[in-house]
This record gives sequence, structure tokens and C-alpha cells, in this order.
Amino acid sequence: MSEAQTNQPIETNRIQARYWIETAYPLDDAAAIMAGEQSTGTFVRTPGETDELRALYAARVESVRELGMVETPSLSGSGLPRKRSGPIPRRTAEVTLSWPLANMGTSLPNLLATVAGNLFELKPFSGLKLLDVTLPPDFLSAYQGPQFAVEGTRRLTGVYGRPVIGTIIKPSVGMTTEQTAAQVRMLAEAGVDFIKDDELQADGPHCPFEERVAHVQRALNDHADRTGKRVMYAANITGEIDQMLHRHDLVAAAGGTCVMVSLNSIGLPALVVLRRHATLAIHGHRNGWGMFSRSHATGMSFIAYQKFWRLAGIDHVHVNGLRNKFCEDDASVIASARECLTPMFAPPHKGCTIMPVFSSGQSARQAPDTFKALGSMDLIYAAGGGILAHPAGPAAGVRSLHQAWEAAAAGMPLADYATMHGELRAALERFAE
Amino acid sequence: MSEAQTNQPIETNRIQARYWIETAYPLDDAAAIMAGEQSTGTFVRTPGETDELRALYAARVESVRELGMVETPSLSGSGLPRKRSGPIPRRTAEVTLSWPLANMGTSLPNLLATVAGNLFELKPFSGLKLLDVTLPPDFLSAYQGPQFAVEGTRRLTGVYGRPVIGTIIKPSVGMTTEQTAAQVRMLAEAGVDFIKDDELQADGPHCPFEERVAHVQRALNDHADRTGKRVMYAANITGEIDQMLHRHDLVAAAGGTCVMVSLNSIGLPALVVLRRHATLAIHGHRNGWGMFSRSHATGMSFIAYQKFWRLAGIDHVHVNGLRNKFCEDDASVIASARECLTPMFAPPHKGCTIMPVFSSGQSARQAPDTFKALGSMDLIYAAGGGILAHPAGPAAGVRSLHQAWEAAAAGMPLADYATMHGELRAALERFAE
Repeated sequence: MSEAQTNQPIETNRIQARYWIETAYPLDDAAAIMAGEQSTGTFVRTPGETDELRALYAARVESVRELGMVETPSLSGSGLPRKRSGPIPRRTAEVTLSWPLANMGTSLPNLLATVAGNLFELKPFSGLKLLDVTLPPDFLSAYQGPQFAVEGTRRLTGVYGRPVIGTIIKPSVGMTTEQTAAQVRMLAEAGVDFIKDDELQADGPHCPFEERVAHVQRALNDHADRTGKRVMYAANITGEIDQMLHRHDLVAAAGGTCVMVSLNSIGLPALVVLRRHATLAIHGHRNGWGMFSRSHATGMSFIAYQKFWRLAGIDHVHVNGLRNKFCEDDASVIASARECLTPMFAPPHKGCTIMPVFSSGQSARQAPDTFKALGSMDLIYAAGGGILAHPAGPAAGVRSLHQAWEAAAAGMPLADYATMHGELRAALERFAE
Repeated sequence: MSEAQTNQPIETNRIQARYWIETAYPLDDAAAIMAGEQSTGTFVRTPGETDELRALYAARVESVRELGMVETPSLSGSGLPRKRSGPIPRRTAEVTLSWPLANMGTSLPNLLATVAGNLFELKPFSGLKLLDVTLPPDFLSAYQGPQFAVEGTRRLTGVYGRPVIGTIIKPSVGMTTEQTAAQVRMLAEAGVDFIKDDELQADGPHCPFEERVAHVQRALNDHADRTGKRVMYAANITGEIDQMLHRHDLVAAAGGTCVMVSLNSIGLPALVVLRRHATLAIHGHRNGWGMFSRSHATGMSFIAYQKFWRLAGIDHVHVNGLRNKFCEDDASVIASARECLTPMFAPPHKGCTIMPVFSSGQSARQAPDTFKALGSMDLIYAAGGGILAHPAGPAAGVRSLHQAWEAAAAGMPLADYATMHGELRAALERFAE
């Protein structure tokens, strides 16, 4: 079985990390430099770096798999091996390293300094990207992982047998709390299961958090009282730690079920504190992730990235969507979403699976391909225009999404199912690709 | 005066951010898309986005300065303007946007989601990098900034009129607490002012934090009792927030004066909590920064990056060094260091300047060029091999650094000064470039 399928390190007391590299150095030398720099080594071998110490603590090169040559370096500033100059071949490869767990202990911040850290700046590399990490289940004694995840989100929203249909409050900033609550009421009446703040909306003076949550939750509580349906509202609590804990408690007191945080803005330790405190689902927004992902030659893949945040305790995370409006291609979107639903640890350990959130340019159109590629309904399917811009109004927009997922589940082409379902038919006409 | 010189936004109630972009879109359109996406806009103009709302909350394009054309896109996945296909010209430019402070308030996490956030993934851009941010001094009511910085670090170390001479404990991991303390004692006796843990060394079972700090501080306290010289030891407290606060207190109780954190591992809110709690200097390690900086086409410059951390409260930050062993060139190193010493806010507001830490392949060699380029002695000059590998031993290594900086201050060529100073002469022979 491949690593990707098991997600288990080869040895249970070692951390493993897989990288894409590009280098003018012999590949084995390059891998050894990575391992040395991130464990016992330094630029100059020091007297203290004994053989015994190396045997116990040195990172190990587990594998080096050559991928191919490149003509020009992907990134500038890298160096050449000694005594070489002029144009020399650069190779790309996948390298897997491992470390004894004892080097950093079960600490996500220190794990990050080890598997990422200074590696990206090392001179021999004109490209180096972290592709994946595999961790021993010992980390579960230090981190709680998700509290609600798929099952808890279904329980809180009462949605089973189909994706949770979500949407976002727009415009991002500028609406008053009353205007926001009015939009939320309209969206709840249209039948959505989930509504989130925009990540740009936090606690500005024009729409202060406390007042916004009070108004929005009142609208959603009224809706629940009238219809029995409790819509999940992911209130953006991003801020300093004391603010986030206070805002979490305000949401809980107002009857809410979810809070949202911008992961890259708050960092892992803040999320850990929030998770310990939380009685609500935590919706992870990955804005800023493009900094890690946009270059093929540096940063880290979402596959590696999301594992840190899952262990730290998010329940949902954004993965874009098929044919989205950003730069990410469909294969990457699906790989990300599948990873969210793949256990990080084998039973009897907690798998820490979470709910992927599909969004960005989503309408009824992408449902069948999404289902086919993912093989699961365990996702939040968020549409903005796909609901609001439906010609027959937002309620029809939501119904068109239900119908699209019914067709997907039944394995029927959308066009066929649309002959019997007017909302889907109108959606396919409106949201032509 | 240019922005770079004043570091003040044009209007005192607006945030400003400067970007490098690469796009196939007309530049003004591209800039408008950035501004729209990160404020009132969405992919589709929604009914709520009224003209009044836009006037109050929309981000503004302050300037667009064309830089030149590129033949091929720097990053893959970007899109073309409507009705265009095939090879079309891509332009690069510097774009400055501004936002009303009210959009995100004086919140660094929410500022980050605004000035960085989803921008990097926007389809029209085959390159987009955040170059700088300028903030109104209102942020000083929410953040404390550095507590010790240059002056406090000089007071704590008793070093005046020259750089603080530092070194790092090596090997990174694997030594026992006793071995670590023995190395520290040797380095103190050699005359260093500052010693730091490696960022890979935190609280592993082979060198537990509490025991390491106890042993190391005992050695340094003994040294201070004997010599009157208090060496600053930056103990790596990186971890979860409760761990960091506890470790900070252990260091303080043991008589230490400094703690170190891996910034990218802990995040801004955790640093803010640590700063509020801290009675010791905070040494900021930027490992992982390569992910933001290695590509010219995505991420953010150190100039922007370090402003967030300075406001949040670090006292020192790493900037590599001239002719370092990483990929960063000298111009970037000097620009980073100068920025650390440049006030973020004009008097009477706190400037939040901090102490840059030069390291990586540093020896006596780089002192004159560093002084010339920086125009200041307000730095930590850290050398590993440059001290330990000196032919006459580490004390001579430290003296060679003092002599090199004396020469730099006097404007004398190193070779001339070396004729009268044997340690410097030996260093120049040993550390040939």
C-alpha cells in the first residue's frame, strides 16, 4: 500500500516528511544536506556531533526518487556544488526524510520548525516544497483533533444524505448589523443549511461583532422556532486570543453552533487554545494559503498543511471547488478534499477527518463531477451567486442545488434530471459554463 | 519624501499596502480587481454593494506603476482577460492600495486577512507579492510593540558602542543538558555576549527544557558572579501558549534575560499573549520565512512581514547576514536590517524599532561591509564557526570579531587593522572567502 493510502509512517516512533526538490547537486548529497541541516548538523561539522549522537538523533533519508531534469532554475539564488560553474543540469526528485519523534516531541509548532523551517532557504535548492507529513499517533495525546467534524456538523444542522448547502454573506464589508441579519434571514428562508461571514468581516466599527451576532442569531433562532430547522452560522471570531474566546462565548450564548477563524492569521497555538475552550464547531478559513501553494517550487502542499490544523482542532476547512474562480486546478481541489476525509491515523486511533468546504464559483453545475471525484456527500457545498443569482430567487437556487446533488447521487446526467425539475433547469440555463 | 523613508500612510486613518504584480490584464483593471476582492466586492456585484457603501468601505487604488513586460508567466494557473487567448503580453507593476482603518480595525490578524488573504490566488495574476504595509499609529493602542529592543538589549547585556556578539548552541539536537551547559560555559568564558538555542531544540526528552535552562543559567549566573558580565541566553520556548508562558517564567526565575520563539510556528496572537506576559526580551526566529520569500512571484517581503511581528512585540529578529550560506542576497539582507532600525511611526509615537540579528556564515570578514551598509552598530552579530573554528580557540574568535568591528568603526581596512591584531589576522587567514 502506498503512503498516501495509509497515511502512517513506516515506523511508529518516527516523523516522516516528503518533499519535492530541484537541485544542481547530486540527489543523494542534496537529501543528506536536508537531513543534516534539520537535525544534528550545521554548515560546519562541530566537535559535539559525535557518531553516537548522529545515530540517535540524525534525520534519515528514507527515499530519493528522481523525477526529471529542468533547463532553468525555478527559483533564483541557489548555489552549485563545489568546483562546478556555468550551466549544469538540475534534477527534480521526491525525497522522504524521517526523524525520531524524540527530536521535537509531540509539538506541532516545533514539528513545523523541523519539517519546514530553514529548509526552503538552503543554498543547494532552486526549489523545495513540503508535500506531506506522516505522524505517529502519539500526537493525539497532545492534541484533541476535531470536535464535531462530519458527524457533528450533520447533527448540528440536521442534514443527512446530502452535502450541507452553504452560502456566504456579501458584500464582504460595509453592511450594518441589521442589514447583515436581514440577509441572513432571507438566506435561511431560502433553505440554506449553513451561512458564513466573509473573512474580511470581523469586528469593524460599522458592523461590531457582538451586535452582529446578536442580530443574526436572533434571526436564525426565530427561523428555528418557526420551522424547526437550525441554520449553522459561522461567525468570524478571528482576532487576539482573549477576543476569540470571548466571541466564541457570545456566539454560544446567542444560540449559535459554529465559529470561523482565519487559520494563517491566528497560528496553531491560538487554535489549540480555542479548541480546548470550544463548545462550538470550528470553521477553518485558509485565506493566505496561496502564499504557501501558488509556486510549485516553494512552500507546502495543502496535503501537509491541513494535517497540522486538523490535529489542532478544526472541523471544516476550505478547499476551493471544481472550476473555481481562483488559480487552483480541479485535481488539486479534489486531492485536498479527499485528504480531509482520509484518516490521519489508523483505528483504534482517532482519524481526525474533517469536512471539506467547496466554494468559489459553485452552482448546480459542479455537483455531479464533485460527487464522482470525491465519492462522498460529506462536504459543505457553498454557493454565493449559485443561490442568489438564480432567476427564480434564492429559494429556487437552493432547490437547484438539492436537485443537482440528487442527480449526482442517482448517477443521472444533470440535463436529464432537469427535465423533471424546473429549478435545476433554470440554474443550468443561468449558470452556463 | 518617498513612502519608504517616512513609513507613514498618506492618510492617518487608512491602511496602505504595496504589491508587485504580474498580469495579462490591463493594469488598472487588475488593481481594481485586487481592491474589490479585498473589500466590498465579490466575483459578482451583489445588490447590497451600493455606491454609498463603496464610497465608505471600498479599498482604493492609490497608484499603479508599470515596471515591464515578461515573456512567460511566473506562476501557472492564472487566467486571461475575456475574449483573449493565446500568447498575450504580461506586464509587471507596483500597485499601492489603501483601506479605511474601520474595515478591519486595529487587529493584526484581520489586517493580514485583508492585505494578504485570498489575493495570492486571484485568477488574473501570474504573480502577486506583498512588498510593504504602512499603518496608522492607532495600532499602538492595541499592541505593545517591543519591550527591550536595542536599548534594553544593551542594558541587559552591558554591551555599548559595538554590536552584541552572539553565537548558537550546536549541534542543534542531541546534546544532554549537561553537555549544553558545558558548551555555554565555554562560550561565556570565550567572551560572547549572547547565546541562543537552535530552533530545532525545544523540549525533547533528551534535553528537557526545564533541566536545560537550570543547567545553562547556573553556568551563566556563575560566570556573572565571577566576572560581572551577564551573558544573554535566548532559550527556545516555542510551543503551545501555556507551555511558552510557563517556560518564560522558568527562564526568569533562573535569572535569564531572554526567550526565543519560532515566529511562523506560533502565530501573531500567541506572540501577543507572550508579550503581555513577558518580563524578558523576546528573540524572534523567522525559520520558515523562506516559504514567503523564496519566490519573487508570491508571498511577502520581509519588509512587510517584520512589521506585524514588531508591533506584536519581538525585540530581535533574524535577517541572515552578508555573504550568508542561504539563498538570500546581500541587498535583501541589508534592506531587512535597515527596516528593523527604521521607525514604523513618527514621533511622538513609539517607533517600534528592533535589533536585527546577523547570522549564517558570519566571521570577522563581513564586519566592515555590514557596518558600511547598515550605518549602525545596533545589531546582534552571531557567528558559529567564526568563533569556534578560530585557530587560536573561541576566545580569540570573539576577540577577532571585536577587532573587526573596531576596524569597521574606524573606517580602516581589515587587513591594515590585522597587522596590529593577531586574532583578527588569524581569522582572516582561516575564514578566507
